[in-house]
Amino acid sequence: MVAFDEAFRRQLRELFVWRRDVRRFRPDPLPSGAMERLIEIACLSPSVGLSQPWRFVIVEDSARRSAVVEDFRACNADALHSYSGERAARYASLKLAGLEEAPGHLAVFADKTNDMGHRLGRATMPDTVEYSVAAAICCMWLAARADGMGLGWVSILNPARIHEVLEVPESWKFIGYLCVGYPQKEFDRPELERANWEYRRSAKEFTTRR
Amino acid sequence: MVAFDEAFRRQLRELFVWRRDVRRFRPDPLPSGAMERLIEIACLSPSVGLSQPWRFVIVEDSARRSAVVEDFRACNADALHSYSGERAARYASLKLAGLEEAPGHLAVFADKTNDMGHRLGRATMPDTVEYSVAAAICCMWLAARADGMGLGWVSILNPARIHEVLEVPESWKFIGYLCVGYPQKEFDRPELERANWEYRRSAKEFTTRR
Repeated sequence: MVAFDEAFRRQLRELFVWRRDVRRFRPDPLPSGAMERLIEIACLSPSVGLSQPWRFVIVEDSARRSAVVEDFRACNADALHSYSGERAARYASLKLAGLEEAPGHLAVFADKTNDMGHRLGRATMPDTVEYSVAAAICCMWLAARADGMGLGWVSILNPARIHEVLEVPESWKFIGYLCVGYPQKEFDRPELERANWEYRRSAKEFTTRR
Repeated sequence: MVAFDEAFRRQLRELFVWRRDVRRFRPDPLPSGAMERLIEIACLSPSVGLSQPWRFVIVEDSARRSAVVEDFRACNADALHSYSGERAARYASLKLAGLEEAPGHLAVFADKTNDMGHRLGRATMPDTVEYSVAAAICCMWLAARADGMGLGWVSILNPARIHEVLEVPESWKFIGYLCVGYPQKEFDRPELERANWEYRRSAKEFTTRR
């Protein structure tokens, strides 16, 4: 049985602590094959009934990338209007995506119609297909951070518009749009990054016993 | 900036390869605090707008655990009936959960109504709440494997029944039921484990460019 030692576990914990949602990227391009290597890692992740429902679209065309940036701007303006007063001012001060600077754009979808794995494990909980894709993104995120890269998951987008822009099959459900690149900098203490908006709570607050 | 070296990255890749869905557990109990430590790791994972929507229920009561096992049996019998011939015989031969042997039972939910993070990032993609919880389970899964433990995600359950059995708030969406313990054994080659049902495809099959 493959085993891991205490030194690895310590570093793995550091990786969990320092995995961040990156929104400020340096303009440096990704090394050749970097995106494909991250996708390979994602494909090692758990999926319901080994359904492997993940569908990755590497977005390279500049017109399509600009259309995604435009959609983000429109959705983000709508979101800003849902807040008022101090909260709106704080929202406006947040940088919520690095779409314009990030060298790598990756759209990720879940194919709900795929029959791989013969639909095992999906009958009573069909959304496990989407959960499998979210888990795959999480693995890729950790791998990117271990490699000195940063990933930002953008959800302030209109899924129907992303479908149009990327011309993907109707049956694919849009899960997330990922910016990939090298981060400009990191805060010295991870908790400071979002101090203006929300803070991280203790695990105890989220745990009960039955 | 916290950095990771090549040796760590190699081991991290091994961890992705060897993270398995465990269904055969040894009866050994979990070390004291092990489940709580895994939940702490889960709480370090990404969540939309730092919404931290994860809700963990450690299931200890033997009557509730038995009720979950019963629900799994009923759902699994239904699933078996959806197949026929050779495929049904193969399905019947699979061991799909280790609920009876696993020392640790953990039910995980997503609180869709929570306002933590002031609903940032959820307006156009509300399901990112569930995706955040799936990512948290993925982190916990990797941490468990690094610690020599195994985790099995059971989805062959009726969410409404799990709500009843565990008496959790209506607004919590059931994401997964996790068995946690020490695995009996591992296959020498990860791909052999499911050879009878499905195989892992290459990342290239899932990647397109636009």
